[in-house]
Amino acid sequence: MDFRTDKLLHGGDYNPEQWLKRPDILEKDIDMLEESGCNVVSLGIFSWSTLEPEEGVFHFEWLQEIIDKLYKRGISTILATPSGARPKWMADKYPEVLRVDETRRRALFGFRHNHCYTSPVYREKVHIINKKLAQEVATHPGVILWHISNEYGGECHCPLCQKAFRNWLKEKYQTIENLNDKWCTTFWSHTYNSFDQIESPSKIGETQLHALNLDWKRFVTHQTADFIHHEIAALREGGSTLPTTANLMYYFGGLDYFKIAKEIDVVSWDTYPTWHKEAVIDTAYDNGMCHDLMRSLKGKPFFQMESCPASTNWQSVSKLKKPGMLFAQSMQAIAHGGEGALYFQIRQSRGASEKFHGAVIDHYGGNDTRVFKEVSRVGETLKEIRELAGTTVNSSVAMLYDWDSQWAMEDSQGPRNKGLHYLEAMLKFYRGFRKQGVNVDVIDMTCELDKYKVLALPMVYMFKEGFAKKVRAFVENGGTLITSYWSGIADDTDRCYLEGTPHGLMDVLGIRSTEIDGLYDWEENSFVPVAGNELGLDKTYTCKYLCDLVELRGARTLMTYGSDFYEGYSCLTVNEYGRGKAWYVAADADKEFYGDFLEKVLKDSGVSCGIKEEIPDALEITVRENENEKYYIYQNFGTEAVNIPVPEGQISWIYGNGSDKLKVYGLVVAKVIV
Amino acid sequence: MDFRTDKLLHGGDYNPEQWLKRPDILEKDIDMLEESGCNVVSLGIFSWSTLEPEEGVFHFEWLQEIIDKLYKRGISTILATPSGARPKWMADKYPEVLRVDETRRRALFGFRHNHCYTSPVYREKVHIINKKLAQEVATHPGVILWHISNEYGGECHCPLCQKAFRNWLKEKYQTIENLNDKWCTTFWSHTYNSFDQIESPSKIGETQLHALNLDWKRFVTHQTADFIHHEIAALREGGSTLPTTANLMYYFGGLDYFKIAKEIDVVSWDTYPTWHKEAVIDTAYDNGMCHDLMRSLKGKPFFQMESCPASTNWQSVSKLKKPGMLFAQSMQAIAHGGEGALYFQIRQSRGASEKFHGAVIDHYGGNDTRVFKEVSRVGETLKEIRELAGTTVNSSVAMLYDWDSQWAMEDSQGPRNKGLHYLEAMLKFYRGFRKQGVNVDVIDMTCELDKYKVLALPMVYMFKEGFAKKVRAFVENGGTLITSYWSGIADDTDRCYLEGTPHGLMDVLGIRSTEIDGLYDWEENSFVPVAGNELGLDKTYTCKYLCDLVELRGARTLMTYGSDFYEGYSCLTVNEYGRGKAWYVAADADKEFYGDFLEKVLKDSGVSCGIKEEIPDALEITVRENENEKYYIYQNFGTEAVNIPVPEGQISWIYGNGSDKLKVYGLVVAKVIV
Amino acid sequence: MDFRTDKLLHGGDYNPEQWLKRPDILEKDIDMLEESGCNVVSLGIFSWSTLEPEEGVFHFEWLQEIIDKLYKRGISTILATPSGARPKWMADKYPEVLRVDETRRRALFGFRHNHCYTSPVYREKVHIINKKLAQEVATHPGVILWHISNEYGGECHCPLCQKAFRNWLKEKYQTIENLNDKWCTTFWSHTYNSFDQIESPSKIGETQLHALNLDWKRFVTHQTADFIHHEIAALREGGSTLPTTANLMYYFGGLDYFKIAKEIDVVSWDTYPTWHKEAVIDTAYDNGMCHDLMRSLKGKPFFQMESCPASTNWQSVSKLKKPGMLFAQSMQAIAHGGEGALYFQIRQSRGASEKFHGAVIDHYGGNDTRVFKEVSRVGETLKEIRELAGTTVNSSVAMLYDWDSQWAMEDSQGPRNKGLHYLEAMLKFYRGFRKQGVNVDVIDMTCELDKYKVLALPMVYMFKEGFAKKVRAFVENGGTLITSYWSGIADDTDRCYLEGTPHGLMDVLGIRSTEIDGLYDWEENSFVPVAGNELGLDKTYTCKYLCDLVELRGARTLMTYGSDFYEGYSCLTVNEYGRGKAWYVAADADKEFYGDFLEKVLKDSGVSCGIKEEIPDALEITVRENENEKYYIYQNFGTEAVNIPVPEGQISWIYGNGSDKLKVYGLVVAKVIV
Repeated sequence: MDFRTDKLLHGGDYNPEQWLKRPDILEKDIDMLEESGCNVVSLGIFSWSTLEPEEGVFHFEWLQEIIDKLYKRGISTILATPSGARPKWMADKYPEVLRVDETRRRALFGFRHNHCYTSPVYREKVHIINKKLAQEVATHPGVILWHISNEYGGECHCPLCQKAFRNWLKEKYQTIENLNDKWCTTFWSHTYNSFDQIESPSKIGETQLHALNLDWKRFVTHQTADFIHHEIAALREGGSTLPTTANLMYYFGGLDYFKIAKEIDVVSWDTYPTWHKEAVIDTAYDNGMCHDLMRSLKGKPFFQMESCPASTNWQSVSKLKKPGMLFAQSMQAIAHGGEGALYFQIRQSRGASEKFHGAVIDHYGGNDTRVFKEVSRVGETLKEIRELAGTTVNSSVAMLYDWDSQWAMEDSQGPRNKGLHYLEAMLKFYRGFRKQGVNVDVIDMTCELDKYKVLALPMVYMFKEGFAKKVRAFVENGGTLITSYWSGIADDTDRCYLEGTPHGLMDVLGIRSTEIDGLYDWEENSFVPVAGNELGLDKTYTCKYLCDLVELRGARTLMTYGSDFYEGYSCLTVNEYGRGKAWYVAADADKEFYGDFLEKVLKDSGVSCGIKEEIPDALEITVRENENEKYYIYQNFGTEAVNIPVPEGQISWIYGNGSDKLKVYGLVVAKVIV
Repeated sequence: MDFRTDKLLHGGDYNPEQWLKRPDILEKDIDMLEESGCNVVSLGIFSWSTLEPEEGVFHFEWLQEIIDKLYKRGISTILATPSGARPKWMADKYPEVLRVDETRRRALFGFRHNHCYTSPVYREKVHIINKKLAQEVATHPGVILWHISNEYGGECHCPLCQKAFRNWLKEKYQTIENLNDKWCTTFWSHTYNSFDQIESPSKIGETQLHALNLDWKRFVTHQTADFIHHEIAALREGGSTLPTTANLMYYFGGLDYFKIAKEIDVVSWDTYPTWHKEAVIDTAYDNGMCHDLMRSLKGKPFFQMESCPASTNWQSVSKLKKPGMLFAQSMQAIAHGGEGALYFQIRQSRGASEKFHGAVIDHYGGNDTRVFKEVSRVGETLKEIRELAGTTVNSSVAMLYDWDSQWAMEDSQGPRNKGLHYLEAMLKFYRGFRKQGVNVDVIDMTCELDKYKVLALPMVYMFKEGFAKKVRAFVENGGTLITSYWSGIADDTDRCYLEGTPHGLMDVLGIRSTEIDGLYDWEENSFVPVAGNELGLDKTYTCKYLCDLVELRGARTLMTYGSDFYEGYSCLTVNEYGRGKAWYVAADADKEFYGDFLEKVLKDSGVSCGIKEEIPDALEITVRENENEKYYIYQNFGTEAVNIPVPEGQISWIYGNGSDKLKVYGLVVAKVIV
Repeated sequence: MDFRTDKLLHGGDYNPEQWLKRPDILEKDIDMLEESGCNVVSLGIFSWSTLEPEEGVFHFEWLQEIIDKLYKRGISTILATPSGARPKWMADKYPEVLRVDETRRRALFGFRHNHCYTSPVYREKVHIINKKLAQEVATHPGVILWHISNEYGGECHCPLCQKAFRNWLKEKYQTIENLNDKWCTTFWSHTYNSFDQIESPSKIGETQLHALNLDWKRFVTHQTADFIHHEIAALREGGSTLPTTANLMYYFGGLDYFKIAKEIDVVSWDTYPTWHKEAVIDTAYDNGMCHDLMRSLKGKPFFQMESCPASTNWQSVSKLKKPGMLFAQSMQAIAHGGEGALYFQIRQSRGASEKFHGAVIDHYGGNDTRVFKEVSRVGETLKEIRELAGTTVNSSVAMLYDWDSQWAMEDSQGPRNKGLHYLEAMLKFYRGFRKQGVNVDVIDMTCELDKYKVLALPMVYMFKEGFAKKVRAFVENGGTLITSYWSGIADDTDRCYLEGTPHGLMDVLGIRSTEIDGLYDWEENSFVPVAGNELGLDKTYTCKYLCDLVELRGARTLMTYGSDFYEGYSCLTVNEYGRGKAWYVAADADKEFYGDFLEKVLKDSGVSCGIKEEIPDALEITVRENENEKYYIYQNFGTEAVNIPVPEGQISWIYGNGSDKLKVYGLVVAKVIV
């Protein structure tokens, strides 16, 4: 099922159940939503104890009333299922709904997201209320989308989950001999005689069988996906045919979002960048890459479900967004293919842990605040650029981000337990591509590679069965591959490949990785150009953390290490394979290297965003398109105004224009007829 | 009941039960106590297993004998109740006396302060032994005061405490609807259906309902106070009419000392400053402010119950006190209104965890040690200045320090989770006042304001019901108010005030706080003077951590921010209200700012210590007085000798004199006829 | 029983049970073992689940076959008992075999070393399999030594262990009154009425009775030794007369290795230095001192059981050993008296937590790796210098390292809880001696002192009963004693000595320690030479952390403190006593001080390695000898080639020669006829 909207969404989480005794405030809220150009709110998140204050006693009337009032003022509703937090009466009557932690201790009631996804009781209670909401509330024309629960995450080690885990393993491995073999249980005498003997990982039990840890994480994703499936089934049983979303969270380590995304119709996510902590452009690349990941999860438009309109209260420092920052953040979501920019939350709560989380309407409550004015500016702008709704982002470049691989790599001991700097490495690749204005997809190993021209595999530790073959075909058919150190080391159950790595690609890359050196934080090495190298690289760059030593098996060397006993060893190589080329970056080089190197690789591969002028630093360019038109979206995340480089073609200016300098945090949108 | 003494107390904790097999040592102890000028010891702390080695079998004779021997040599006894640690037999027979932690796990026997304050068994056992001590030991004329238990603290989450907590809540809130409303339980569906559902906060359960956390802390204070009440009732039942004390600890976060102080007759406290870690004057201000707090708890004289005569063994580094430091520390207790300076402990224990804690008599045991000589010097001096006994400290300046407000502020998420620097802010205000030699009281919201001329409210996050009104009246009647950022935010149950803050004082201050910016540790902003401002401030100061942005509503601006997007916004304002003035400091400025600003505000308010000359840095001046005389007490906590500035009037020199320079760590006491 | 070998051992841990499905690999392993000059492997460590996959079902045939194949190729076997990790079926059927932690929570199955040493079931199961291995496997002529379990360590707090602990205490103290007295239980009312009341230390119970903590640690050593005894008894019952070893670990804090060593025939240990983290010579001294400790445990040859041939995966950074480093590390084991240098492990495992731990044969599996070549070089060299086998290391200098003393000192609170820098102090003494090329033994208080000329007691906090007397006799008879600050403070049960310290040696040293000052990390003081001092010391040195203030009682002062209130106080003293001399170092001076001071003390004591020329920095010289010959072993742990200083006598060059400069990480062995 597709979620389609003909406007760009603007709004956010709204919790009127906290204000039911203040009808004056509820009235004012609607006025202010309208004033700020909001066209949608999320309702019902965490409302279970208001919706069902006692077991079997339901109160939906307040919700129905608010949906109706909003609808009459042009504001739609994204309706949540309330499973993100359950009422106290349920925990008291049915303790099984509470999670058990890895030490096998059952939690007390409290916090949120504290419920077993396996518990039949919890599933039943969720089923009942979801179905009722579908029957009695979602039928209102104001409701346009389901918001399934809230920020899924966490795990439970209760006996019910143990049993489900064993069944899942049995289905996967069929025989215990097979599992023992794949898990390498001979190590430390951990061989199992039967599936019944298996227990989930625990710091007071087993943590050293990495394959167990990895399968447990996969099971947690499986069980959560199954729970989502169960939630949605209740809605369908209740007759609702509305599309569904779930709000995801950044590069959340607890769930494989590529699998979770399959259960829902449209991806949405919650973004809380720490703007102004580092250079704004650094934060913008980090946030932008995550937008691209979210878009790539389903290869479809997504939207920003939550973001903070003011300062975030749970971060170490609650820093104010400087003027224009909120606008720029909201527009970035649209630039990267989002269909809306929503906030958490509309009205600040008076008490409890989020009372100082920024909101559209704060405790003071006036429309004369700096934040309210900036929100209104976003609302206005989203109307001005609404023709972007429905256009898509197409990319020639893909980077690989695979949860299984990351889990396995980070769970392993070695080669650098105090930090592999994986995400930083991803971001250095990403900014290298993005500085040239080209769109980037962030995909996993199951995705199709054919539509890309350039494929980057930074630290792809795990090569799942068939993946090397797929990559080989990609290069053979003319693709450009860039692989880095610490790739192709282990198989699907984290068993190391024998006979050389990167497994299955040694001939494609023309090298074999022989050893990898860990550097202390205070150490560094360097990348020194080989005179006359084919990319014309002529600077020396530093590298840190990890240095791979490769044996040449046909590749050509472009750069070599500058010091240590491996001074002179190759650290950047290239190899022709089939109609394509395969590059190998042997160490964690600095961002200047990636900037220069990837600029040249893109040129070499014929990939461009269509702009020939040089693109100023900190100017982010993203392209959305439809059949006939391309929209060039320019955002300035730097510290001074810059000129706008333009593509060839007939340009019309949708927002701002190309003749003025683009101010800091400003936006320009140009349309080009293709 | 009042505790009165016609001398200044000198002595300390003494544990003869550790040496009963060494009568030679016990004899020598008394000789050395006498030699060092000690006139009092605390006995019986942690002696339960010696007093009642088996259930119902009591041995008081050794204690009676020692009290008698001491008495005959002129040394009084402060007699402890033994509840600070209970014997092993009790824990074994009655496990309910042991505490249960927040994860609901009962402690094993061990350590100290490990007992449930609710347990009927523990209360009964305490009652029996306290009553017997009153009947059989406290009747000796050598006993002058009760020392109730030792350093009360900690909490218990056992079922008995849960029940008591629920009853306490029921009494407070009457209906569960009222509690739900005040606690904002709608947040995350935490609504309660009945008081029976409530459980104490726990990291494995609920920690996000700040009102629950806050009320739990209040309950812990309540239950502890109730236990103290119970302890004292047993003494009275045993016929004792002696006054009582309990030894408090610095700015201890576990108990609201304003409430605890109501249960006892005289406040005493244990001070362990880390002298020589930072500049000695910094430590002296910190210690001095705590003396002032302890004095303000009951608005009556107090005394120093414990301090370390040598180096403290439980701190990260056991640093020796340099020559004169012990003397200076002891005299500071007297200067700030204390009636005595006592030590922990008289004789160093041979084994267990405190065996390296400094003592008057160390393991070596001689009277030729550096420490013993310095202790003797203190003893001698206390005799020389004994006329200070019974004089009081009166203050025109009050600073507010409220446990509830601090608890709520620190439990909240935002605006700066990595550190609000509250105590540092308090100390910057304090040193600003104290550099002018004026006495300062440290009060809470229940205290009378009428007797003060200047009231400082640094970071008073919570304005309890009626407080704003009281402050308003104070200003109206001519008082000078100084309020800072992050004040007047929340009500008694930590619900945020709506419609603008500082709640209830916006008109008094002539401003509204609109937003607050958190700064990273490496960031700073500045206070820039407005030309010609009415205080004549002409320097620029730095500020850090938190910057409040205010909207002017009638106030005048004296200083503005120097950078960031709020450059030029007001950061120091003043407003006239009634016959008084109200100042607002919007950010955490440096100590130089507070030094200059408060000097001028004191002058503007007509508050002075009576000295017109400039007071040298690091010279602490405190004034004690009786009906006819003022005693100016001078202490040099700096690094070089300084001149003594004198007040007007007829001066006589009680200790030292004003014509010599005052040496480092030295003391001068001048008497002035009023 | 003695373990004798006529060759130097070379080999390592080998886990063929991980590769039973790959006979091709097992064949290749043997070829490569032979190629690399390996002559021994350890088999059977962690093999229990392969040896006894179900209760009572044994499979030894695979092991027998491998032993036989290896034997036929000249490779011996060290056969392990499998108790280091037990099978899952055992934990499931007999939960008592699993450990209980200090919070009294039983562990789940997992990890390794997770079994109760007291459990009768575990002991029975170990007995059965050990006996069977003795009967059925160890009878093969290829088996030369028993490897008892693996890296013993850890503790269990289960009811069975509690009971055993009480019995052990009862036997030690006889009466509870005696225990109460020795443990100082009066402190905080912790007096026991009977042995039945005693519980092991726990962070949720008792941790403040240091004597309890100390006796618990002693009990853990006792119980582990008893378990080892039990393991070996089963082997003897099975008819095996082979000698035994257990692999120890560095300065492991969990067990008193002097006591453990008594249970086995030959000491072996596992060394994992972090080469290249600090200057290589620093690491070499640290590693060298541990070799000397291991040799001193039994006063007999030992060997290196484990070391990493490549990079270690469980350290924070997996750093490659630079070329030559592995060779140098292996040779250092031989230089210090070792009879072999073995590795962990032969073939890298494919999965689980050690999959990236370096190995002789890595995942790639070729013999063309840098590591394999370096291992082969070690193998070759060990053959060339095999005449060192059977020679011994004799020392004139002893340093004291006593587990009880260290445990007590580090458990105590004060005088510097944030770090006493004990091991660093040991190493500063050690490098001072070793820079002069003299051999050093590292002994405990039970060892004979008569054979030494110089005895160093750095920070010997505890003087056990009789020790001071023994030291006194040593000095009386002409020995040179060097004692430092924080020595002779407490007795066997950590009760402080009264009447002055260093207890029992004040007259020998001619001083009394009066106070000790803790310095913050950022503070320092200095050692200033007294003009014309008898050692001719003429430089000023810094000191840190701890400064002892001594009162002279006859000693002469050579150096005094340079600052603080104790400027001018003695910090280096000497006293004649009997025919010997006693030096006292009052503070933690820098390594330059120890270098200069100990050089002069050695000269003053007539101790030398026989070389008169100056020894270059970072050149380590160790002497092995037999009746007629001395072998001078030179190793360069510096950063540049150095000249070889030679002793007098007739020299023949066993490896390398004295005319060339010795390269970095290089080796030279010279034989001198005595």
